[in-house]
Amino acid sequence: MPKRTVFFVSDQTGVTAETMGHSLLTQFEGLEFKAVTLPFVATVEKAAEARERIDATAVAEGTPPIIFSTLIKDDLRDIVKDANGVFLDFFDAFLGPLEAALGVKSSHAAGRAHGMADLQSYTQRINATNFALSNDDGTQTRDYQQADVILVGVSRSGKTPTCLYMALQYGLYAANFPLTPEDLETVRLPGPLASHKAKLYGLTIRPERLQQIRHERRPNSSYASAQQVAFEVRQAEALFERFGIPFLDTTDTSVEELGSRIMQKTGIERRLRP
Amino acid sequence: MPKRTVFFVSDQTGVTAETMGHSLLTQFEGLEFKAVTLPFVATVEKAAEARERIDATAVAEGTPPIIFSTLIKDDLRDIVKDANGVFLDFFDAFLGPLEAALGVKSSHAAGRAHGMADLQSYTQRINATNFALSNDDGTQTRDYQQADVILVGVSRSGKTPTCLYMALQYGLYAANFPLTPEDLETVRLPGPLASHKAKLYGLTIRPERLQQIRHERRPNSSYASAQQVAFEVRQAEALFERFGIPFLDTTDTSVEELGSRIMQKTGIERRLRP
Repeated sequence: MPKRTVFFVSDQTGVTAETMGHSLLTQFEGLEFKAVTLPFVATVEKAAEARERIDATAVAEGTPPIIFSTLIKDDLRDIVKDANGVFLDFFDAFLGPLEAALGVKSSHAAGRAHGMADLQSYTQRINATNFALSNDDGTQTRDYQQADVILVGVSRSGKTPTCLYMALQYGLYAANFPLTPEDLETVRLPGPLASHKAKLYGLTIRPERLQQIRHERRPNSSYASAQQVAFEVRQAEALFERFGIPFLDTTDTSVEELGSRIMQKTGIERRLRP
Repeated sequence: MPKRTVFFVSDQTGVTAETMGHSLLTQFEGLEFKAVTLPFVATVEKAAEARERIDATAVAEGTPPIIFSTLIKDDLRDIVKDANGVFLDFFDAFLGPLEAALGVKSSHAAGRAHGMADLQSYTQRINATNFALSNDDGTQTRDYQQADVILVGVSRSGKTPTCLYMALQYGLYAANFPLTPEDLETVRLPGPLASHKAKLYGLTIRPERLQQIRHERRPNSSYASAQQVAFEVRQAEALFERFGIPFLDTTDTSVEELGSRIMQKTGIERRLRP
């Protein structure tokens, strides 16, 4: 079966339309889609171009494409709605019920969803990102006082991307500290961590997966050997248990889910609101 | 007016429900909301807890809260739908029309939206993040061959968070290189950039904003002086123009929008699909 084309049309980046469309389409297992994002459709000309492109795709594929729209302005939406496609409109579906519930009319103003970054949240995000970078991989530990959370785990267990995601998405100050083979030999808590025990969160990973990841990085090294990897993971988990450090398995878990679960389990409050 | 509480209820992280709710609520200017995310509502017990919490809020505030739900399983959704609130259901609104358009029933399976990260996209994201980190701030330039894009700009113009966002969201290999006062004195292209001109993308920023950001970092330094900042920004823009490097102003622009615009203007294809 040929792939059906799905358009994500937005007057902004298209990230909301993509998120929404992706969530829905994954409910249709076995079907494959060709995704096309049309961002910054913010003028009548751009909207007409989008409509033409959708129409051309309908002709070429012999079936109307799916359209996920987050266009907010009526004049632009009306143009794209006219295209030969299945038009699923985010604002159409929900603004009416929301207006009724809130007892006010919405502004129908374009470009608010991902619009201007206000200075405060921009600064928060930048500061959190800088914190994650300068406290990555145990490079420094003197700012742990400021940390919201300190992720601990063996090399390549997923600490860095999780910290960066928490910084960018939630504005949290997330540091990370690697457990070295020497630390693991003795199952002791490295010095810089001992005075911040309440902030520690462990990450673990299935040995086979860790081996695969390390092998890609340093093929056939002892660092990537089955024996070394099994030893490190076993000792890290023993260390988490000995010191009462909560931990998560990163093997099958996205950074989104890791970030969200860590916040939920620790009760850390996000610093950036959605 | 007291803030109305808004619940984001999900069997997963809640990120989709938050994104959707945020886009809609920003259409109601002047109203303020108290946001509560209830993630991982994946059992009947958790759903009943969510309903109780919503009901209690309705009583305490004397008005039914707004509920944005991405619950996919019917039994869980039915429980939360029963709460005393305005229930806006993402799947309710769109799955029906999509099933009709696609001619198949959806799986109604929980936890697919942000579910298991498949190995390939996980690896891509990690590799891209590592690339951004090891090619941050001009620390090394030997991997520019691999870069999808190289962001160029003065110190604190927003290069690092934009690179990280492009890596995490799109799996792109984004490096960044700082223009130093010495480079700017002569308006010449720094050596490592000359052979990768087609990959360069400039970032600029309004001098007043840059001054504010630098002042927070190093108060009352010459680095943060009005004169220095104005000089650097002027020269950087002159350099972009002299060498035909496209550029964007980051002052009022979120990293989402910067990432999306750079992709659109350069035609770089994302490496991670939504």
